[in-house]
Amino acid sequence: MAHSSLYGRSLITTQDWSIRELEEVLELAKDMKQKRFTHPYRNCLDRRTFIMLFYNPSVRTRQSFEAAATELGGHAQFVEPKSMRLKSKEKAGETTQDAAVVMSRYSAGIGIRILEDSISEYGEGNKLLREYERYASVPIINMADDRFHPCQGLADIMGMREHMGELRGKKLVIMWSYSPLVRSWCSVQEAGILCTRLGMDVTYVYPEGFDLDPEVMEMCEENARKAGSAFEISHSLKEALQGADVVYSRNWMSPLRYSRSKEDELDSYKPYIDWKLTMERMRLTNDAYFIHPMPVDRQYEVEDAVADSPRSIIYDIAENRLHVQKAIMALTMGEL
Amino acid sequence: MAHSSLYGRSLITTQDWSIRELEEVLELAKDMKQKRFTHPYRNCLDRRTFIMLFYNPSVRTRQSFEAAATELGGHAQFVEPKSMRLKSKEKAGETTQDAAVVMSRYSAGIGIRILEDSISEYGEGNKLLREYERYASVPIINMADDRFHPCQGLADIMGMREHMGELRGKKLVIMWSYSPLVRSWCSVQEAGILCTRLGMDVTYVYPEGFDLDPEVMEMCEENARKAGSAFEISHSLKEALQGADVVYSRNWMSPLRYSRSKEDELDSYKPYIDWKLTMERMRLTNDAYFIHPMPVDRQYEVEDAVADSPRSIIYDIAENRLHVQKAIMALTMGEL
Amino acid sequence: MAHSSLYGRSLITTQDWSIRELEEVLELAKDMKQKRFTHPYRNCLDRRTFIMLFYNPSVRTRQSFEAAATELGGHAQFVEPKSMRLKSKEKAGETTQDAAVVMSRYSAGIGIRILEDSISEYGEGNKLLREYERYASVPIINMADDRFHPCQGLADIMGMREHMGELRGKKLVIMWSYSPLVRSWCSVQEAGILCTRLGMDVTYVYPEGFDLDPEVMEMCEENARKAGSAFEISHSLKEALQGADVVYSRNWMSPLRYSRSKEDELDSYKPYIDWKLTMERMRLTNDAYFIHPMPVDRQYEVEDAVADSPRSIIYDIAENRLHVQKAIMALTMGEL
Repeated sequence: MAHSSLYGRSLITTQDWSIRELEEVLELAKDMKQKRFTHPYRNCLDRRTFIMLFYNPSVRTRQSFEAAATELGGHAQFVEPKSMRLKSKEKAGETTQDAAVVMSRYSAGIGIRILEDSISEYGEGNKLLREYERYASVPIINMADDRFHPCQGLADIMGMREHMGELRGKKLVIMWSYSPLVRSWCSVQEAGILCTRLGMDVTYVYPEGFDLDPEVMEMCEENARKAGSAFEISHSLKEALQGADVVYSRNWMSPLRYSRSKEDELDSYKPYIDWKLTMERMRLTNDAYFIHPMPVDRQYEVEDAVADSPRSIIYDIAENRLHVQKAIMALTMGEL
Repeated sequence: MAHSSLYGRSLITTQDWSIRELEEVLELAKDMKQKRFTHPYRNCLDRRTFIMLFYNPSVRTRQSFEAAATELGGHAQFVEPKSMRLKSKEKAGETTQDAAVVMSRYSAGIGIRILEDSISEYGEGNKLLREYERYASVPIINMADDRFHPCQGLADIMGMREHMGELRGKKLVIMWSYSPLVRSWCSVQEAGILCTRLGMDVTYVYPEGFDLDPEVMEMCEENARKAGSAFEISHSLKEALQGADVVYSRNWMSPLRYSRSKEDELDSYKPYIDWKLTMERMRLTNDAYFIHPMPVDRQYEVEDAVADSPRSIIYDIAENRLHVQKAIMALTMGEL
Repeated sequence: MAHSSLYGRSLITTQDWSIRELEEVLELAKDMKQKRFTHPYRNCLDRRTFIMLFYNPSVRTRQSFEAAATELGGHAQFVEPKSMRLKSKEKAGETTQDAAVVMSRYSAGIGIRILEDSISEYGEGNKLLREYERYASVPIINMADDRFHPCQGLADIMGMREHMGELRGKKLVIMWSYSPLVRSWCSVQEAGILCTRLGMDVTYVYPEGFDLDPEVMEMCEENARKAGSAFEISHSLKEALQGADVVYSRNWMSPLRYSRSKEDELDSYKPYIDWKLTMERMRLTNDAYFIHPMPVDRQYEVEDAVADSPRSIIYDIAENRLHVQKAIMALTMGEL
């Protein structure tokens, strides 16, 4: 057993890694899915600790990372920083430097999840991850921050490839949908930068006023230019869905989220309650697949008929979170 | 290593399984107790994840299930659904279907605990378990719901057999006792159906007004009829305790629990504060053993002199939770 | 693999163990640090459960104990007694006896953390540990109580030896420093009794009114007498720091903590806001090392220039918590 060339690397967003490196993750994840409990992967993380810092609670992420560490022979510690006496703007406590250095002594790697609810300004979560990365001597894995969600992005790709084969030239529509849940930008942004980069034609469609991070939109444009693929932003559902091979229907917050109350934010969604992925709308597409990072709000984001149809691959993608994360952990902090 | 014939089966109540199947669990549990950390059981759940959903907190159950998974070479994830964005009557969130399918992708099995405090109507907890069972592709293990507690029932049997040998024809008295803790019906109901089924003579004794689930009482009657044993309900402690070989003294809530306030519920217990298992009362019995699912309320449910006497087998039964659960996990979701 | 002669022993404070026994821990910890993931230590706690009872939350302690169990092939369960229905002065629940006996059936050992916030009188936490020890049939390990913190004390010694070699005759100054965090006596008291015992010259320096436990001060005096070392209490920072080889700058509560409000307690610290370890003060010493049990309050307890200097060995000591705890677990509850 030896270390891979990715050993020691953090993963904050797929954009930081080369395509070759991302393909290495995806290839290993595929092999790990086939040989889930067997040699040679069962000891990649033998007796090692992966620390999971959950500034925000989570279903999928905690379960899949904890299972991933177990399957590799290691153990994932579930830690809620609210139980840590960490320094913040408001109160005295331990600095990020001290926390990061000491956790590096105990663990093979640190996962961090911090979403829009735990911060006071867009971008702060991602900045905190970068700060941990600066001080830690083990890899920092982004388990979803306010900007990016690399594990979700890679699981999306893995799932689409399983069902569609080569993705180059296929059209992905990332569609805003109504939901009273005020969701983060991380998943839909990661999908945009990663799919354009791998040569998919990507269209974001949303009501006026729901713009995403302009820097990330520029990345998408630049990625598409380099890959020779198309990138578009549209406000017409009908136009956008034409010819779609995949539809990603998902709520996201507005850019005004931090400058108004949660009530006002939610009120601003109401005129668009009709933005829902229905079977009727699916008929506009090229018999598209439905994807979603889950949990799905079946009341609003999508009709049951779509979510339960044979073209819905949400469960396979959810499962792929496990395999992708095992591959990332094995490559960046384990032995192979 | 191979799968047992019980592989893939859920365990919601012992009533769902055949006597032969239950005896298989008990026999394996006995062997596992003798060979606790040794071959061949140490890898039954090798690197597998068992997800524990705790709608209600717990001492015994969490500790014993988590230790059980560890001893079998697997890992039990402790999850509190309050941290999951699950759909409920009141709020949007993930459906049971989506949660169950995805957890099935990550785990070898799912344990669920949901008691009277987390529901608004008797039976709801058990219904939720059945709903998980419908959608999950891995076994659902009941870690105590509002109706049943199969692991406790099996641990009771294992402990009584260790001390008394053959149970057929022995008299078990399940006695309501005062306590300000408002306890669930699950343990005493599971004991009733399982002990009648295995040929014990079972008497429930309680003050008027503390009837248990009539459907479960019918099961007890039917089980006793088939087994050729006796089943009785009594309101006279003195009569009931005569000739008892085992006394199970335990508080339980009234059937009015959900139609009145907790204060009114508790007030209704007060006239019966004298319902406590004392040494004096034990003298009415056939030198009976004392059993209890723990935690014991030593102030009210039972005198220390009884709980600490050589006839008290509560600690052995508590330990047996571990062995029984290891056997259930190995048979339903592991390899042997 | 066999049991050591320390098998079955609890560790409430280092004062309960002989110097030879403590040296056995330190020697093993040193070897375990060199052979962290390799034979022969990887199975010392094979499939065993270590239960961690956290009456108080913690960063270091939980992470280091959980990693320690994992590295030894076992598993540490993280349990918060608030989720246990334990008996207390105020409410009905399970007795310590019942909890201790049953946990002994499930686990190889039990760690307990209970600090000043969770009790109403100084000494209560330590008394609770002694009560668990009385009833448990497995070792009780003190993960910090209101009086003692043996794992921290041993990690301090291990770290100082790594950097300074022989400690006999070296001067340790344990200095009160201002912080609005109201910290426990356990770490500074354990350091005092252990370092005097091992022959270091120990000086506590603090403002009038911040006396520590008089019984512990007597132990320090007696230990120093037996070891032929010096023990002093001073109220002059300038005098105390002269010739210091190690400075331990740390806030601690006053003896009036439980007889006044937290606000009054904190107000009483304010006249001493200047009690901070600065580079200027370090110049009074014999080029001293800086130690601290972490988390450090860098705003008040110590200047960044000191905490980040090459003479700061706080990270190594924090890491040593892991190795020392692995050694304690292997010796008292595992196989070697």
